[in-house]
Amino acid sequence: MNTFGKMFKFTTFGESHGPMIGCVVDGVPSKISLDEAYIQKFLDKRKPNSSRFTTTRNEADKVKIVSGVFEGMTTGTPIALLIENSDARSKDYDKIKETIRPSHADFTYFAKYGIRDYRGGGRASARETAMRVAAGAIARKILGDNIKIKAYITQIGKHKISRERFSLDAVDTNPFFCPDLGIIKTFEDYLDDVRKRGMSVGAMVEVVVDGVPVGLGNPVYGRLDADIASALMGINAAKGVEIGDGMAVAGMEHSENVDEIRCNLNKPFKAEFLSNHAGGMLGGISTGQRIIARVAFKPTPSSPCPFKSIETTGREVNVKTEGRHDPCVGIRGVPVVEAMMANVLADHYLNWKAYL
Amino acid sequence: MNTFGKMFKFTTFGESHGPMIGCVVDGVPSKISLDEAYIQKFLDKRKPNSSRFTTTRNEADKVKIVSGVFEGMTTGTPIALLIENSDARSKDYDKIKETIRPSHADFTYFAKYGIRDYRGGGRASARETAMRVAAGAIARKILGDNIKIKAYITQIGKHKISRERFSLDAVDTNPFFCPDLGIIKTFEDYLDDVRKRGMSVGAMVEVVVDGVPVGLGNPVYGRLDADIASALMGINAAKGVEIGDGMAVAGMEHSENVDEIRCNLNKPFKAEFLSNHAGGMLGGISTGQRIIARVAFKPTPSSPCPFKSIETTGREVNVKTEGRHDPCVGIRGVPVVEAMMANVLADHYLNWKAYL
Amino acid sequence: MNTFGKMFKFTTFGESHGPMIGCVVDGVPSKISLDEAYIQKFLDKRKPNSSRFTTTRNEADKVKIVSGVFEGMTTGTPIALLIENSDARSKDYDKIKETIRPSHADFTYFAKYGIRDYRGGGRASARETAMRVAAGAIARKILGDNIKIKAYITQIGKHKISRERFSLDAVDTNPFFCPDLGIIKTFEDYLDDVRKRGMSVGAMVEVVVDGVPVGLGNPVYGRLDADIASALMGINAAKGVEIGDGMAVAGMEHSENVDEIRCNLNKPFKAEFLSNHAGGMLGGISTGQRIIARVAFKPTPSSPCPFKSIETTGREVNVKTEGRHDPCVGIRGVPVVEAMMANVLADHYLNWKAYL
Amino acid sequence: MNTFGKMFKFTTFGESHGPMIGCVVDGVPSKISLDEAYIQKFLDKRKPNSSRFTTTRNEADKVKIVSGVFEGMTTGTPIALLIENSDARSKDYDKIKETIRPSHADFTYFAKYGIRDYRGGGRASARETAMRVAAGAIARKILGDNIKIKAYITQIGKHKISRERFSLDAVDTNPFFCPDLGIIKTFEDYLDDVRKRGMSVGAMVEVVVDGVPVGLGNPVYGRLDADIASALMGINAAKGVEIGDGMAVAGMEHSENVDEIRCNLNKPFKAEFLSNHAGGMLGGISTGQRIIARVAFKPTPSSPCPFKSIETTGREVNVKTEGRHDPCVGIRGVPVVEAMMANVLADHYLNWKAYL
Repeated sequence: MNTFGKMFKFTTFGESHGPMIGCVVDGVPSKISLDEAYIQKFLDKRKPNSSRFTTTRNEADKVKIVSGVFEGMTTGTPIALLIENSDARSKDYDKIKETIRPSHADFTYFAKYGIRDYRGGGRASARETAMRVAAGAIARKILGDNIKIKAYITQIGKHKISRERFSLDAVDTNPFFCPDLGIIKTFEDYLDDVRKRGMSVGAMVEVVVDGVPVGLGNPVYGRLDADIASALMGINAAKGVEIGDGMAVAGMEHSENVDEIRCNLNKPFKAEFLSNHAGGMLGGISTGQRIIARVAFKPTPSSPCPFKSIETTGREVNVKTEGRHDPCVGIRGVPVVEAMMANVLADHYLNWKAYL
Repeated sequence: MNTFGKMFKFTTFGESHGPMIGCVVDGVPSKISLDEAYIQKFLDKRKPNSSRFTTTRNEADKVKIVSGVFEGMTTGTPIALLIENSDARSKDYDKIKETIRPSHADFTYFAKYGIRDYRGGGRASARETAMRVAAGAIARKILGDNIKIKAYITQIGKHKISRERFSLDAVDTNPFFCPDLGIIKTFEDYLDDVRKRGMSVGAMVEVVVDGVPVGLGNPVYGRLDADIASALMGINAAKGVEIGDGMAVAGMEHSENVDEIRCNLNKPFKAEFLSNHAGGMLGGISTGQRIIARVAFKPTPSSPCPFKSIETTGREVNVKTEGRHDPCVGIRGVPVVEAMMANVLADHYLNWKAYL
Repeated sequence: MNTFGKMFKFTTFGESHGPMIGCVVDGVPSKISLDEAYIQKFLDKRKPNSSRFTTTRNEADKVKIVSGVFEGMTTGTPIALLIENSDARSKDYDKIKETIRPSHADFTYFAKYGIRDYRGGGRASARETAMRVAAGAIARKILGDNIKIKAYITQIGKHKISRERFSLDAVDTNPFFCPDLGIIKTFEDYLDDVRKRGMSVGAMVEVVVDGVPVGLGNPVYGRLDADIASALMGINAAKGVEIGDGMAVAGMEHSENVDEIRCNLNKPFKAEFLSNHAGGMLGGISTGQRIIARVAFKPTPSSPCPFKSIETTGREVNVKTEGRHDPCVGIRGVPVVEAMMANVLADHYLNWKAYL
Repeated sequence: MNTFGKMFKFTTFGESHGPMIGCVVDGVPSKISLDEAYIQKFLDKRKPNSSRFTTTRNEADKVKIVSGVFEGMTTGTPIALLIENSDARSKDYDKIKETIRPSHADFTYFAKYGIRDYRGGGRASARETAMRVAAGAIARKILGDNIKIKAYITQIGKHKISRERFSLDAVDTNPFFCPDLGIIKTFEDYLDDVRKRGMSVGAMVEVVVDGVPVGLGNPVYGRLDADIASALMGINAAKGVEIGDGMAVAGMEHSENVDEIRCNLNKPFKAEFLSNHAGGMLGGISTGQRIIARVAFKPTPSSPCPFKSIETTGREVNVKTEGRHDPCVGIRGVPVVEAMMANVLADHYLNWKAYL
């Protein structure tokens, strides 16, 4: 249940307000150089309180490697990573001990398990995603430098980026991971207003991957597209996943969706695709083109604004979350989307290598 | 690679133009009544050539049970199902032996495996989905009569159904599995035109499930939403999957997306949800509300209209498919979507039972 | 439950007296030449009624490949194999419909499933092992000609082979798969006597593998020794498994069990082992030495000699099996042991390749 | 690779001389009372330096629960356990940095991974088995008090216990976990002598389980016997596994091996077995009788006595281990065998419950 992957595997543990969170990454080839500083770089992108547009929880998120690395190199044995929870203000949550926050996993965890660690969402907290990012950093090492994964925000609430102003280089220059610098001011003003209203808002994250070889994916129940869909939909707050033209294909005729091919001797298997509506995969197998996927994040259910709900006893209440929260979790979802894409690809990459 | 599921599992085999297709369904509880006629009923819904809007391939699709059932009851041992391919006109495909049909799995199968059964798409053919439907029929037996799964078309090309005229009862009364009888004429005219133009078109399929108990799904890497996403995205031609409000959540504020709760002593855990934006799951676990998902199907890449492509040698050609094809595969995707939903739920249902 | 392996996988189905048995072999690399005649050769070694020392059931055991092979080559898609049951004399079993044969799986299948296909042992019949042999034939193709697997009988009842007269070349020249021609007459006389008394007897099968590269196996829960133990213990009637010196190590001091090493530049990693008490693996990983394992088969529980038992109703009876049976299943276990070893190794081989 | 089990799963990590070892236990039902003291009790049985017959390494082996337990109860989320390595004298191992200790995993880890943590055996150290014991403690909670698992020594070197003097109650009263108090003096004298000679010796561990319900195990590739064989053979230094009469069945006729049945209305399914040669399972499914298995442990390869070997460079050397070691690892294997049996049974128990 808490293990991702088949060949490149990781198992996460830990609750939002427990002593630590951690993960065990298995299936990593030996003799890869790896240290904490490298992983930390990716964690820092996801870190809370990195701008006024994310939660004010103050976590150093310092990762420690406690196994699987010897003298700076992976040994082929499982790599265990730990992050201590330092700023866990559990008291904020005492009042909502019995409360079911609407649209939160409170209800389902309580109903399924009959018990829940209510502090900060416990296991259901997005805090767990830090370990996905850490695992993703290792996954990138397996994939190598030629496979480049980049995620970014394309929409916050009603505000969508302009594709004309799109620049991948811009992504890391602003707190929204946004490739369109022209919309930054709009995002800022809008999120300030959202926060003021005690509200939260959804977002769209797009991820592109260049350099993936042809042939990753195993039809018909180990398809690359199915595994990407699973990995992205499994991120907290995700409600939809698209590949290539995505949901829009329902409205298209073949002539609008077809990716024609011409001969190019410099391309793998001589195939030069004239477009990429497919988003880099056909029949569940990578084509060698850019992989393109999108995932829609819902507004955080933790909001200071009151909504109708019940306590576990059935008592009706108006719930507002007083703990710290993100007005737009989608923003911090960006490095998580990147990481999950890396994790899926590393898993498929190892399988692919077995058949070379 | 060709096995779906963890506890309720099935493994499919067979190519479009081989002697037969089949599957082995494993993990089925014993003493469930099961016969061929019951499974056939579901296969008949998916059968080719059932109306002028589907391929003219003429397959009886008669299923045979060859193991796992004794005197009309399941025995707990694996259930093997076979369907002979009767109308496999392989000669239609001889001409395209070396041809890579654009936007088809031809390219990726050839590139990955270095060999492919080009006849009718071989293993990549949607014909494989017949076995998903057969497995799904068995999955429904596990779920029992109280869990009701229904899929239907909500869009074909630009034409979307009206939610005002929506009726689940209408779904089985028309060849489009459409819940809006008012749009049937539009669909007919449009598809006739599409076929005339040698074109194909995409479609949207929605699926709803009632009666699912609270508690199915295992966070954080065995989530119900992630598994549904995987199962639906893994269907041939699917390019996007949504749950509940889906991709639209990116544009919403929490007040538009929240599902408030009131106390109702007749509901499980006393929780009456005032809306269902979440589509029946929170934190990857079922809430007991109706499950709602959507999947977008792209236009069939097999079309009589010519498009630019290459042969495996690199020779540039214009490709048109002369084999029979569906102008809108999404229509025949409806029973497949239902089946895959049943398959996911049966798998989770058995896991859930282990913890009761 | 009915699937073996992780990367090289096969799923079997079918009952002893159903219309057919079959398996689906998945994870096979593409472009391997494969045809029915090749697989048949291995099946013929295991075939019933091949000598007077095996069951008189008369099965042609003709295998058919119905998917995954195109123009004589594997395509990377699942390979389905079918064998029809031709000589299923179910009537022999009518009398024992309600009877629980002692030491047979009758009791546990009945108790677990509440229903059982009593004809010829149903799914619990050793007939299923034909499919293991078929899968094993494909596994050998993956391993290549340099990896040589050979199993043979070393003991039938109290009679053990002489290691002095041992010759691998002798194995295929006698109906016992015995490497010691000097003991054949003893085996013959003994088994004739056993059969006359309506009795059955146990046997020991040893298997050796040469040419396995160093490095197969994944500590600590994907160990090669653990997987071999599982594969061999999982064969019908197996009750013990040893690797290298096996159970005898309990009585040894290190000086008797140690495998010393000298430098030999022609050996992988320059290591020349002076002995092989370890049976070819250390720490769960292959050493490159010969793999040696043994498995003990119990006497067939199906015997014409009467033993005390009950019917499913509780009625006490004396049971004797009137269906055909093997006086010493261990003999026909030989090709099954070979096949299961091939299956384990092929699975590990693919994993190993992924990390090269 | 480092994950055991399917439904009850645990993943271990950590090297002998790293900062800590740990495991993540997944699939544990919620609302089971659990604390560190309970787990510690089992760890203390396996702890090094508990008598002069085990290694003098001085590890407190204090376990910490860092997730999955809230207010003394399991929450259904993964339970992470950590044990710090306190007495890791890595310097002892500096001299053997390049040395391949014969019959140790040194060679295979080096050959497979090209790098190894040579300190104390790194990941290959029996230290990892502490986490198996910790997981086993949780597994027992799932199985409940009615399922009783007990392992004990039946042989050390040439010295075997007397079955006449056998008493399960004696097991926990002596440092050998020996059920025969009459042989203790012999064991003591022998092991003192073995230690004096710088030697080590093998041992046999038997394990019995009472109270297992009928029906655990899933033929044909999820058999209880195969899974037990795998779990026991996968313990460090194990070279053979037997169930019931074990290897001896090869020499038996059916009349010696048959377990006859009489009717007893107080027994499950009215079956009273008159003997238990099968060791509690038939056809891979538990019969409800006592489960009996045995595992043979080889002599520790770490011994102060010198043996021929090479360095990784090929240089020939005589190797003697100066780090602390166990003269008879089999003794400390006893709690590990118990734990692995509990782990297998818990995994099957949950699967079994899903089909009730």
